[in-house]
Amino acid sequence: MINTQRLSEHIEELSLIGRATDGGINRFSYTDDEKRANELIEQYMKSAGLTVHYDTVGNLIGSQGGTENLPTILLGSHIDTVPSGGRFDGSLGVLVAIEVIHSLKEQGINLRHPVKVIAFKDEEGTRFGFGMIGSRAIAGTLSTIDLQRMDEDGVTIEQAIAMYGFDKKPLSSAKLEDIKLYLEVHIEQGKVLESNGVAVGNVTGIAGPLWLKFQLTGLAEHAGTTPMNQRQDALVGASLIIAEVEKITKQYDSSVATVGKLIVKPNGVNVIPGEVEWTIDIRDIDENQRNQVERDIIQFAETIANERQLQLHVTELQRVDPVHCDINIQNVIKESIQEIDETVISLPSGAGHDAMQFKECFPIGMIFVRSKDGISHNPKEFTSEEDIEKSAKVLFKSLVKLDN
Amino acid sequence: MINTQRLSEHIEELSLIGRATDGGINRFSYTDDEKRANELIEQYMKSAGLTVHYDTVGNLIGSQGGTENLPTILLGSHIDTVPSGGRFDGSLGVLVAIEVIHSLKEQGINLRHPVKVIAFKDEEGTRFGFGMIGSRAIAGTLSTIDLQRMDEDGVTIEQAIAMYGFDKKPLSSAKLEDIKLYLEVHIEQGKVLESNGVAVGNVTGIAGPLWLKFQLTGLAEHAGTTPMNQRQDALVGASLIIAEVEKITKQYDSSVATVGKLIVKPNGVNVIPGEVEWTIDIRDIDENQRNQVERDIIQFAETIANERQLQLHVTELQRVDPVHCDINIQNVIKESIQEIDETVISLPSGAGHDAMQFKECFPIGMIFVRSKDGISHNPKEFTSEEDIEKSAKVLFKSLVKLDN
Repeated sequence: MINTQRLSEHIEELSLIGRATDGGINRFSYTDDEKRANELIEQYMKSAGLTVHYDTVGNLIGSQGGTENLPTILLGSHIDTVPSGGRFDGSLGVLVAIEVIHSLKEQGINLRHPVKVIAFKDEEGTRFGFGMIGSRAIAGTLSTIDLQRMDEDGVTIEQAIAMYGFDKKPLSSAKLEDIKLYLEVHIEQGKVLESNGVAVGNVTGIAGPLWLKFQLTGLAEHAGTTPMNQRQDALVGASLIIAEVEKITKQYDSSVATVGKLIVKPNGVNVIPGEVEWTIDIRDIDENQRNQVERDIIQFAETIANERQLQLHVTELQRVDPVHCDINIQNVIKESIQEIDETVISLPSGAGHDAMQFKECFPIGMIFVRSKDGISHNPKEFTSEEDIEKSAKVLFKSLVKLDN
Repeated sequence: MINTQRLSEHIEELSLIGRATDGGINRFSYTDDEKRANELIEQYMKSAGLTVHYDTVGNLIGSQGGTENLPTILLGSHIDTVPSGGRFDGSLGVLVAIEVIHSLKEQGINLRHPVKVIAFKDEEGTRFGFGMIGSRAIAGTLSTIDLQRMDEDGVTIEQAIAMYGFDKKPLSSAKLEDIKLYLEVHIEQGKVLESNGVAVGNVTGIAGPLWLKFQLTGLAEHAGTTPMNQRQDALVGASLIIAEVEKITKQYDSSVATVGKLIVKPNGVNVIPGEVEWTIDIRDIDENQRNQVERDIIQFAETIANERQLQLHVTELQRVDPVHCDINIQNVIKESIQEIDETVISLPSGAGHDAMQFKECFPIGMIFVRSKDGISHNPKEFTSEEDIEKSAKVLFKSLVKLDN
């Protein structure tokens, strides 16, 4: 069904572009290495029978017509990396999609729907601190103001596009219309599939992050002279709340909540902490559930603050809506997983993906592939050839089913 | 019994030396301001009938003979400050001692024992990061190696002494022999007396600090893609331990334990904390109890680390022995407190004092005076005239009783 050897060769060949001596890959948007990577992808697309072009922001798009006059099916992912990234995050999705189209052609299967395979520009946001540039453009949500964002050298996205040599056209020219659905294969970047012993999984949605900042203020006093029952210790209060964050979140199946950043003031060995500031990152594909976790945490924090005469102040840093995968597409993916004799696992994506940008545009579906030890954004990122083959088969089967 | 007006004038007059515009007092060892302060104390001592001299490290000593050939009673405290310190910490003890001697003289009371009132050199350690220089010298524990410690400008204690102009003699010349006991009045620097509504208190001992460093290592993973039940979150582990530190310590009457300093790594909003490092400051005048608190905390931390697959590493930063106040002196102080119609409260000192240095030398006793809101090391430090008068009366009565 799939030419696994060809796919593996493509993964190896692409991984050489931008690779440092430590194995880490550095491919940032609108750079020479990223251009070379795109040129390599162009060749693979052409071999697969696709017609290639770049849109105004630099998305590389390989197109083929359908046998009927129907909306287009989109496939894709990205080929840019984080600093010292791995060879699978993003790249795998692009290469698997091309391989599926290539195999379909070799097997003489003509799809009813037109298909576009896209290597989206700058998903990671490494260069401009602003990711998913290509998918935003295709969704029609990228603005000319966004293009004024600068990299560390003061170069704007707009200038980078011009230097790269793309035709200057209105941003609206990049928006794709009359799309049936979007399908993406991506490594899981977590350990759910691994711990369940399966190669591929059906993604239920992409959890949007809610970021809150908590400030808890007590009284910074002498650690030696203040008895335990006369303290307003902000760190003990914070500790009770942080321990409860885990407890609360575990009650909700799909939620995750993380206190990742915490600062103590004045932070002296013999001074009772007078103030503690920390962030909470809460994610769930079920927005109501995420809101419930948020409410439970804040309510508990308020109780602790009241009991301990501490002042609590909570501010919102960002609140991104979760995106759901289309139920019909999910069912098709699950059927396809069953057909290759794998147990069906459905899981949310905690990390963001290009597919998020299409929330208001057209239905989306995602297929996750097992990542060794859940490691990503790291040269140690690894997914086996067998698992990659399975993901390609699931994409192949899903595409054919969705085409009918 | 006491000339409170004179005492208040002395407190006011001394507070002007080294005082900044914000009211904070800066008197550091071997500086011009500290020299002027010592010269003022010299005058007060002389008015009180004391013979004045400086020893080789710069302790200012006012002496009077006794009517009998008996060991010497020492009284005193220090007149140096922390940066932007208050007017009572240290200074009060020196001035109250001088006032008591002055009042005794005026009332024609001659003590059987010789008495020395000492303004100890550099209790706070502000300049050299090494305090209690004067009391160490008098205890005979200050070494020539200690004198090589440098201030921020690279000036050693030895050089500072020489610049100050003291006679260069062997350090051993500062050691005092044939001492009956040491008595000190000091502000509480805590809120125990205030919350009990009493002006003065009997000190049971000086709690030595035990400082431990805890390192807890887990796994720094993606906050979005790692389910709650697959995490090795070092901060949740740390939080459970820190909350328990309070719970454990509250079971022991006189113990205090504080997590004052804590650092999270990598400290990113969307990264599960991979490592947390924190300090614990444990104090008790009962060393066995302090050791028990330490054992309980470490045992609990080990349990948490094992349950959560975290690596725990505990190191000792310092372990200072607690010092007990002499039971006979404590009884005399308690009687004296009763005689001025105050409720007797006995309490440990959580902060360090010059008296600690005399642990192996001679019996010690300390009288604490109420501090408003427990504030010290701050221009807001405040003790009322009435409370100061009571502390002087208790010192007066205790001295007379101990002399008999």
